[in-house]
Amino acid sequence: MTKMALAVLIQGTGAHPASWLQTETAADASTDIDYYKAAAQLAERGRFDLFFIADTPAARTDNLHAWSRFPMFMNVFEPVTLLSAVASVTSHIGLGATASTSFYEPYNVARLFASLDHLSHGRAAWNVVTSANDYAARNFGLDRLPPHGERYERAREFVSVVQALWDSWEDDAFIQDRESGRNFDPAKLHVLDHHGRYFKVHGALNIARTPQGQPVIIQAGASNTGKDFAAATAEVVFASDSGVAEGRAFYQDLKGRMAKFGREPDDLKVLAGLPVVIGTSAQEAEDKYQALQSLIHPDVGRMRLSNDLEVDLSDLPLDEPVPLDRIPATSNFHQTYFANIAGMIRRGMTLRQIYMSYERGLETVRGTPIQIADRMEEWVAGGAADGFMMLFHTMPGGLRDFVELVVPELQRRGLMRADYEARTLRGHLGLKRPPNRYAQAAEVAPIAAAAE
Amino acid sequence: MTKMALAVLIQGTGAHPASWLQTETAADASTDIDYYKAAAQLAERGRFDLFFIADTPAARTDNLHAWSRFPMFMNVFEPVTLLSAVASVTSHIGLGATASTSFYEPYNVARLFASLDHLSHGRAAWNVVTSANDYAARNFGLDRLPPHGERYERAREFVSVVQALWDSWEDDAFIQDRESGRNFDPAKLHVLDHHGRYFKVHGALNIARTPQGQPVIIQAGASNTGKDFAAATAEVVFASDSGVAEGRAFYQDLKGRMAKFGREPDDLKVLAGLPVVIGTSAQEAEDKYQALQSLIHPDVGRMRLSNDLEVDLSDLPLDEPVPLDRIPATSNFHQTYFANIAGMIRRGMTLRQIYMSYERGLETVRGTPIQIADRMEEWVAGGAADGFMMLFHTMPGGLRDFVELVVPELQRRGLMRADYEARTLRGHLGLKRPPNRYAQAAEVAPIAAAAE
Repeated sequence: MTKMALAVLIQGTGAHPASWLQTETAADASTDIDYYKAAAQLAERGRFDLFFIADTPAARTDNLHAWSRFPMFMNVFEPVTLLSAVASVTSHIGLGATASTSFYEPYNVARLFASLDHLSHGRAAWNVVTSANDYAARNFGLDRLPPHGERYERAREFVSVVQALWDSWEDDAFIQDRESGRNFDPAKLHVLDHHGRYFKVHGALNIARTPQGQPVIIQAGASNTGKDFAAATAEVVFASDSGVAEGRAFYQDLKGRMAKFGREPDDLKVLAGLPVVIGTSAQEAEDKYQALQSLIHPDVGRMRLSNDLEVDLSDLPLDEPVPLDRIPATSNFHQTYFANIAGMIRRGMTLRQIYMSYERGLETVRGTPIQIADRMEEWVAGGAADGFMMLFHTMPGGLRDFVELVVPELQRRGLMRADYEARTLRGHLGLKRPPNRYAQAAEVAPIAAAAE
Repeated sequence: MTKMALAVLIQGTGAHPASWLQTETAADASTDIDYYKAAAQLAERGRFDLFFIADTPAARTDNLHAWSRFPMFMNVFEPVTLLSAVASVTSHIGLGATASTSFYEPYNVARLFASLDHLSHGRAAWNVVTSANDYAARNFGLDRLPPHGERYERAREFVSVVQALWDSWEDDAFIQDRESGRNFDPAKLHVLDHHGRYFKVHGALNIARTPQGQPVIIQAGASNTGKDFAAATAEVVFASDSGVAEGRAFYQDLKGRMAKFGREPDDLKVLAGLPVVIGTSAQEAEDKYQALQSLIHPDVGRMRLSNDLEVDLSDLPLDEPVPLDRIPATSNFHQTYFANIAGMIRRGMTLRQIYMSYERGLETVRGTPIQIADRMEEWVAGGAADGFMMLFHTMPGGLRDFVELVVPELQRRGLMRADYEARTLRGHLGLKRPPNRYAQAAEVAPIAAAAE
């Protein structure tokens, strides 16, 4: 049986809005580098493929009384510096971070992730996102996030520039021949000359091609545009469907789109987002989950829905159905979140019911280690995912429970590796090392010339 | 006697153009994270204040045959990721890196260095440069570097935005009170609303105020504009004068400018750039230096002069004086380098003589440990510097010789600390922890109100 891939998503003190209220986690963990190092080492002990840091380049600047109860985005490390520090105390686990194509320069992003790939000896991954939010837009001279279509157009160009820069040097360019005094072979440096709609870049990256050839590309877009973008360029996709049937439909849709971009289905791994709460019994797990949910302050619940639906819901009573006419005509920020909330409103749920069950399209699985392993096996065997991006509501306890109780069960079933068999993230995931585009061209050129 | 501050400048495999040809250094050291970690640990053993990485966000893309003999800028880590990895294996030494205000967004730079300050527990420093070069400009959509005055205008605005973002949160903003459910005090978050000529930023940094309050600001500008900028904002200045008299003149000029910006002379430390080659005798040191110089290929020497003088010298014979009319009327890239070369041309030196002695305004001190300590003592006692930015032509040997042979001599003389007495870079350098501008305002406001 194919092994499943496993990532862990780290968001500050835990994935739950009220995680910081749990006494198990140090209250200042979100800026405590030792907390992250220990978490990465724990995940590495659990033979995870990927330690992943979500990110938005912004603090929230309004509704501060609500955000002060849900501080997940207010006080965090910049993720690439964080992962560079973590790289020093880990040896195998992949290191992935989000960077938005809307707020960076391609040359800087190319360097950051190439540098991380070198210093981690081949463990870097870049999660390409277009969105973030208007808070981020305002930090970068914009009043609001550009429209969805424009963001994706910019993202396509951005990624193509970054990937071209990653190929600036052929793998064997640095010959370091002291006898001849030649450090590199000038013929193996390829200067990019890009004139696009959003970017003009004439230059070469100032770092050798990386151990993985290129860092792994992650995406999570679920819109039609997002899925085409992922099918064309992503190597890992974070999916967010709650049922096996929906998961399989997404999986087949996404992998089916790859052929038109000349890619094999195996060139992309779909990791289903999976929040879990583990108990010694199903009831204990349910109780733990409900205890966490009860800690969500109504102001926080209401704010999260207002933000993701992109409409102000602050005037509505908590315990009456949300009027249908409060659903906006279109979404700009995130189409899956939007559809998820709109669906619950259409089903007549009250504001409180919606925020108590809203998990941005995911659904927390509560159960014993066996039940959670069963669910994961069902999902992978059912062709709905190649693996999972695990979310733990409280840290480090949630991850520790999983590593100690669920991982051994998955290993027993042959669904997870007993030990790492590779040293790079591509190696763990079974992804090809991409050939350098210029090295290929050089091989092809003489043949074409001969044929003329 | 006042202790001298010591920084070490790391540029790939060593500060000398031919350093990579030395067999002592691994040929691939410039992207070997273990090489940098060992170097930082060595400097920490020598009780250095600062481990500093110079940077330009660009590879060279022309004259590649010459650059292939002088690969210093072609294959290096992005410096903030590098220092984040180094932070994990060091505990006291400061960690500084260059980032150009011409090619980044203030929000991203503010985050990178704030993050580094947190994860190093108060050891981060940002070297603010305006220049880099046209290679860098072309990576960021420009054809060439903007003019000197415009770069400084942008730099002033850039730094003011970054420093304001670093004050987004007051030091005691994150109360993390689980009882009340309040993670932070909203009154202690200050949203920047900046509308400037170059930047528009409405937002707050998404990380707590850093252990140092703000990372340390470094600069190196030697032009009149650059000195005013440094007097207004820098806390460390890298100087590049060769003689004590010139050094003292620069020192007094710079410190004299500070009063008009409301600053005390002690708020800024001048570190004189000091390349050294150490031998058991003066002759041995001289021989080591000359052996290195002889490895500079004429193509490399000619190219370095052409670049820093901003004029093509490729047609000139090596062993005849450079015609005076080859000196351009004005400099844009770097005024000190320009003046240095122009001076040598005016003294009638040949191209070969110039490139063999040109060190970008510095002069390598060759001598025994005692002689080098004498020179350093003379310099500091003569009021020409508060300390030194050491450059070692070959690594790790140059640094190791200095730590083992010169540092003990400086300690014996009471010129260097025997052990660290602080945990932060500000602590080492004796720099004040800057108060948060908003916290001050809050204290002042009631008094002003009462006075009305």
